Amino acid sequence: MLVNGKPGNLISIRDRGLLYGDGVFRTLRATHGKALHWPLHYLKLQHDCAALGIACPDEALLCAELDKVLVQHPDCVLKLIVTRGEGTRGYPPPVAAAPTRIWDFSPLPDYPPEWATQGIKVRVCNLRLPAQPRLAGIKHLNRLENVLAAAEWNNPEIAEGLLLDADGNIIEGTRGNLFMVSQGQLVTPDLSRCGVAGIQRERVMAWALQHGVTLQVRDFGLEEALHADELFLVNSIIGLWPIRELEQRHWSQFPVAAQIRHDLERQGA
Amino acid sequence: MLVNGKPGNLISIRDRGLLYGDGVFRTLRATHGKALHWPLHYLKLQHDCAALGIACPDEALLCAELDKVLVQHPDCVLKLIVTRGEGTRGYPPPVAAAPTRIWDFSPLPDYPPEWATQGIKVRVCNLRLPAQPRLAGIKHLNRLENVLAAAEWNNPEIAEGLLLDADGNIIEGTRGNLFMVSQGQLVTPDLSRCGVAGIQRERVMAWALQHGVTLQVRDFGLEEALHADELFLVNSIIGLWPIRELEQRHWSQFPVAAQIRHDLERQGA
Repeated sequence: MLVNGKPGNLISIRDRGLLYGDGVFRTLRATHGKALHWPLHYLKLQHDCAALGIACPDEALLCAELDKVLVQHPDCVLKLIVTRGEGTRGYPPPVAAAPTRIWDFSPLPDYPPEWATQGIKVRVCNLRLPAQPRLAGIKHLNRLENVLAAAEWNNPEIAEGLLLDADGNIIEGTRGNLFMVSQGQLVTPDLSRCGVAGIQRERVMAWALQHGVTLQVRDFGLEEALHADELFLVNSIIGLWPIRELEQRHWSQFPVAAQIRHDLERQGA
Repeated sequence: MLVNGKPGNLISIRDRGLLYGDGVFRTLRATHGKALHWPLHYLKLQHDCAALGIACPDEALLCAELDKVLVQHPDCVLKLIVTRGEGTRGYPPPVAAAPTRIWDFSPLPDYPPEWATQGIKVRVCNLRLPAQPRLAGIKHLNRLENVLAAAEWNNPEIAEGLLLDADGNIIEGTRGNLFMVSQGQLVTPDLSRCGVAGIQRERVMAWALQHGVTLQVRDFGLEEALHADELFLVNSIIGLWPIRELEQRHWSQFPVAAQIRHDLERQGA
């Protein structure tokens, strides 16, 4: 682990990342000493920092740190946290705050491989996401809603929970983005009011553009999702998981999801 | 500073307080070696921990730590943070998490004393609070909305900003609770959908009960607030500040607020 470029696993109790969740993060997959899709992750980091008014660390600085971590941990899940830094008491962001950079790693998860091919069972979470346009899309450190939603079930056969907004629109999974395949088109939820816009979602959107597949970003509810030809979830660690069971509905064929997964994996999972 | 009972100012980068804002906190005023209204703070801490499913540390343990801090810092602002503790990667709360206890202190603020007697100038924040009943009232570590709201102004003559919900109801200040005096009655916003229910708010509510003053907990908007006889903000550090200016409205008399402030200060600010 690195904290501000130095080996270590501790930060100040006065770091605003702890005090207020005042920061952003990225979760990346490292394979054979390479952090997959780093350029997309850095762009998103820049975007999220800008949205909170945090000075994003230089890419060269982060890359140098990343290289240090990858030498020791060539195959792992990497986590990069950037907080606004330390500050005195009070909510207003310090003018001269020096952002804190944290790199951590964990072992690659050992999800059942059939989840990627045969799909997963998914539930609908009771917790609803409220509309906060100022934070929508940002992968920030205020993640209590994800924690509470993930605490709703402990059946290991249920791989993920879907988060809906107060109006019943499906927004995302607790840790990934959702796509629906319907009449040959791709549909993914509008994340302008809530949710986290991940880079794997961007990659699927780019895939649709490249392959001439119509992609809609719009609201849709559970009823429409249950009538979809396919549903699938994506994030940087799992890659792509089709959904085989949701409420009383079962799916067994995922031709579009399988194609996208295949193409994304060819470019690096 | 104390971290889990030991002198120190560092925590693990794997503490869920940092990773997800998965924790709660209290801000207390210490005077002459005594933490004011500790029993109320501990009750609220218990309540907030329970709401998040965090095992609240024993009061005896926290009191022993508090005594250590007070010996060194008899007059200060105390901050107590309780997080869910360390965990491996992932949102689900670890079953066997050991909560982290953090005590920090900072100097008592030097607010202009006339703010308490002649009132403060207040603005309306642009950021709106969304409805999240699962987190409403809890003083948790997901405070980015307060940070962004507090970043909206830097005119030091404006002492506080009011936070409204998406429907235009006034909920609170960025760091305190609001009361309105109207026709001899006290009114304070309903915090069942958003906002933080502080212990100074509880004390004012108890004051109303003791003095036979009708107190309503209900929604109200800016228009009604601007027609109030008095408005005032409370928290454990500022005590009570009347509002002398909001939008185009000015107030110069605060008889009820002054009475409440006087009575609260007699019981310890």
